[in-house]
Amino acid sequence: MSDTRDQILEQIKLQGDLVRQLKASKESKEKIDEEVSRLLALKATLGGDATPANQKFTLKTPKGTRDYAPQQMTLRQGVLDKIVQVFKRHGGEAIDTPVFELKEVLTGKYGEDSKLIYDLKDQGGEILSMRYDLTVPLARYLAMNKISSIKRYHIAKVYRRDNPAMTRGRYREFYQCDFDIAGTYDPMLADAECVKIVAEILNTLDIGDYVIKLNHRQLLDGMFEACGVPANCFRAICSAVDKLDKSPWEDVRKEMVEEKGLDGATADKIGEYVRLSGGADLVEQLLADPKLKAVPNAVKGLEGMQLLLKYCALFGLEQRISFDLSLARGLDYYTGVIYEGVLKVDPSPAGSPAKSSQNGEQAMEQGGTVGSVAGGGRYDNLVGMFDPRGKAVPCVGVSIGVERIFSVLEAKFAASKVKLRTSDVEVYVASAHKGLHEQRLRVLNQLWDAGIKAEHSYKLNPKLLAQLQHCEEHQIPLAIVLGDSELAQGIVKLREVTTRQESSVPLVELPDEIRRRLQK
Amino acid sequence: MSDTRDQILEQIKLQGDLVRQLKASKESKEKIDEEVSRLLALKATLGGDATPANQKFTLKTPKGTRDYAPQQMTLRQGVLDKIVQVFKRHGGEAIDTPVFELKEVLTGKYGEDSKLIYDLKDQGGEILSMRYDLTVPLARYLAMNKISSIKRYHIAKVYRRDNPAMTRGRYREFYQCDFDIAGTYDPMLADAECVKIVAEILNTLDIGDYVIKLNHRQLLDGMFEACGVPANCFRAICSAVDKLDKSPWEDVRKEMVEEKGLDGATADKIGEYVRLSGGADLVEQLLADPKLKAVPNAVKGLEGMQLLLKYCALFGLEQRISFDLSLARGLDYYTGVIYEGVLKVDPSPAGSPAKSSQNGEQAMEQGGTVGSVAGGGRYDNLVGMFDPRGKAVPCVGVSIGVERIFSVLEAKFAASKVKLRTSDVEVYVASAHKGLHEQRLRVLNQLWDAGIKAEHSYKLNPKLLAQLQHCEEHQIPLAIVLGDSELAQGIVKLREVTTRQESSVPLVELPDEIRRRLQK
Repeated sequence: MSDTRDQILEQIKLQGDLVRQLKASKESKEKIDEEVSRLLALKATLGGDATPANQKFTLKTPKGTRDYAPQQMTLRQGVLDKIVQVFKRHGGEAIDTPVFELKEVLTGKYGEDSKLIYDLKDQGGEILSMRYDLTVPLARYLAMNKISSIKRYHIAKVYRRDNPAMTRGRYREFYQCDFDIAGTYDPMLADAECVKIVAEILNTLDIGDYVIKLNHRQLLDGMFEACGVPANCFRAICSAVDKLDKSPWEDVRKEMVEEKGLDGATADKIGEYVRLSGGADLVEQLLADPKLKAVPNAVKGLEGMQLLLKYCALFGLEQRISFDLSLARGLDYYTGVIYEGVLKVDPSPAGSPAKSSQNGEQAMEQGGTVGSVAGGGRYDNLVGMFDPRGKAVPCVGVSIGVERIFSVLEAKFAASKVKLRTSDVEVYVASAHKGLHEQRLRVLNQLWDAGIKAEHSYKLNPKLLAQLQHCEEHQIPLAIVLGDSELAQGIVKLREVTTRQESSVPLVELPDEIRRRLQK
Repeated sequence: MSDTRDQILEQIKLQGDLVRQLKASKESKEKIDEEVSRLLALKATLGGDATPANQKFTLKTPKGTRDYAPQQMTLRQGVLDKIVQVFKRHGGEAIDTPVFELKEVLTGKYGEDSKLIYDLKDQGGEILSMRYDLTVPLARYLAMNKISSIKRYHIAKVYRRDNPAMTRGRYREFYQCDFDIAGTYDPMLADAECVKIVAEILNTLDIGDYVIKLNHRQLLDGMFEACGVPANCFRAICSAVDKLDKSPWEDVRKEMVEEKGLDGATADKIGEYVRLSGGADLVEQLLADPKLKAVPNAVKGLEGMQLLLKYCALFGLEQRISFDLSLARGLDYYTGVIYEGVLKVDPSPAGSPAKSSQNGEQAMEQGGTVGSVAGGGRYDNLVGMFDPRGKAVPCVGVSIGVERIFSVLEAKFAASKVKLRTSDVEVYVASAHKGLHEQRLRVLNQLWDAGIKAEHSYKLNPKLLAQLQHCEEHQIPLAIVLGDSELAQGIVKLREVTTRQESSVPLVELPDEIRRRLQK
């Protein structure tokens, strides 16, 4: 901020040279746009004088972000309302936290992903970063307010400087819908309820068949130990296993051996385990496995899984869940159960089963699924990281990846050509001829004061046909048509837009008559 | 990001010295906290090794921001729901835009306030800033999508690096609730509807008596011209007039003369006008004023005001509005009508009329009012600033300052000692004795699948008394008490929590019976 004008002018000159150079060497449009944007930002710091009134800049939203138009908002609101309904059915209370946190709150919580955090510019105050998820802010909130139990939901946008893939619903600014249960309770009761919540949400949204994969971090650690992974490599190897949903085993093995220095034989042993998935019988089988039996962590993880599967069966989820040893979850903070709700491949040709079978290994590992739409797990130590005395508050929670759900629904709607209504207008107030705008305002006022959703043309003398067309286009159910002769008798015409039937209604009875019609 | 470890260690040393120095010279706690926070952020960049597991840092939200606890969320959601209801009654469609924009989108739109914009750190991509309001993003959205008419609402947080005054509801992160009408229409029809919307919202929120002040930028410019202000000083003088709601005329005059170089006699002429407020009769009086009559801008502004007052009267707003020549609004982009909804002084002793009368001038200027809770106006040129060909889309809109409304309501609730319910749980499922947790899960599952909001203790064997106390504390209307003897007969006890009356209900009829009870 203390740069002098001359310094900025010099920077503008240099940046201008860079842009010209990039253009000359035909760099990618994106790269050039970025540098042009820096150039314009520099010019902008000089204030109004340096920039022409209609400055030419790329008219766009930031990379990886998007606007929501009214149709998209209607779809989005419908999804969020259904999710909130499920959260409330389970006794959730809402909280909200700021969009940014002190940078140090986020530090050391996300492992390899920390590089994706958005930082704010140091403008001479606190050092801030945009929230990366809603879990760390919850932990900070609980520690700060010394709350030892809560069942809370939080629906808000989070920020990650990731490579966006927007057609598949992957953005840099995206919604998370989180439900978490904090408190010291008996094992797996809260955990199983979170799995139930995922199932209820995916059922109510009706976006296709799904499976909820379950695993346990303690079992993973025990399994790594049983295979001979050194303890200080558990998180790194876990993070490699996490990639199995996107990459074939060969690639993951390569990462373990070549990047993370694991012994090849050890990796192969892991490979045997992470291929396994099943139900209660698989737990039995693994509890009898001599290598795992010898490792206390593995036994504890398996016993936890056994209890979880039992509770899930009581919740009627047997057909929806799969105990899956390849599930690892990326984030560092999980300590117990982890789970992920995954949509199965669309059976339509667009689901391209042929392509999946081209690399058989991947299809086998993935079990024929696409796109994780929910995930979560238990994190018993995160709140303690914020408490001055390290007091822990055990937590388990779930996060719904609604952007992917929005994109599935948007594609569905685009294909169906159904036009969603984006406003709730019940009555349109029209003029049959010129000179009636003041009468319109009087009638509108009467309707609004009666709580009826009404609108009109903002023109003094709109054409009747244009007004009625507006009603049909916007699916407004009723129209009132004002005319001098009727008004002289204290009546107006009430028209049902779809049937085009009209009847006369006394002005004083208008709100009641409209309510009657709308109830039909 | 390319700093080496040694460089960072050096920076840490210097920053540590600074902190010690500040502490030694007994600087303000806030200043010290800020520098400590920078120190910790520096240490954090070194990764996990440099920071102990339970690093000691101030556990807080960023300056000027706050968390919303469940009680506050319940209050907030109630207010936002009521506002959305009004927006929808007027046919509003929702949109949403990203929380940040390319910096250049915001540049040159906010006049003197631009220094309050939050910038993001340059992490090697686009140069971004946090949105400062919802109006400029709307204009960008309209120009980008070539939309020439829309009636949209947008409820979202905006960001200003202002001096927070949180007890009075002034934050750095705060909600705005905007409704705007874009399109080329006949004069004042959309403008009057925005005033109506402000009135409906303030009526429905029921937070005390209010007045909506109205003025017109064209009239202000015409009045400045009539008083002899040079044309290139209009915006600066307008910005001084804007301070009349917080400062007495003497201070504003001083700013005009001493800071902005205005002739003293000219300032005094302005002083005569900005003291005036009234209704349609004041418009008549000013239309007859020889100085104003000679200035076309003033006449146009007055004629606009005349039409607006007429339409407002048709909307039943005569007692709610005041044409007020001291109203100026801070933002640069207004071109026509401007308005502000202001709560009148609380008549209680806390409203301290004595204090107001101490500086009579100020009290007179303010007309005995506190706190603006809504504001807006017409901005016909903003969209054109984004359009490559300068194509204008005339707009008029209103923004509701909900934070101030939240703080009024929070104070009201704190005083009333009423405890808001923060969850919607309808039924609590309790165990009468040990060993019933699996039965509880079965009953819960039955209730959830029937859409009933239900919860239980996450303990295997909770005490009955503790469970019933939970119901009373959380105002849960119904409890189901499970016991072996009843379960053997296929029945459970259903208890009304307030009356403590219990009756036996067959398990299979439970959801229906609960619905019946809840309807009562």
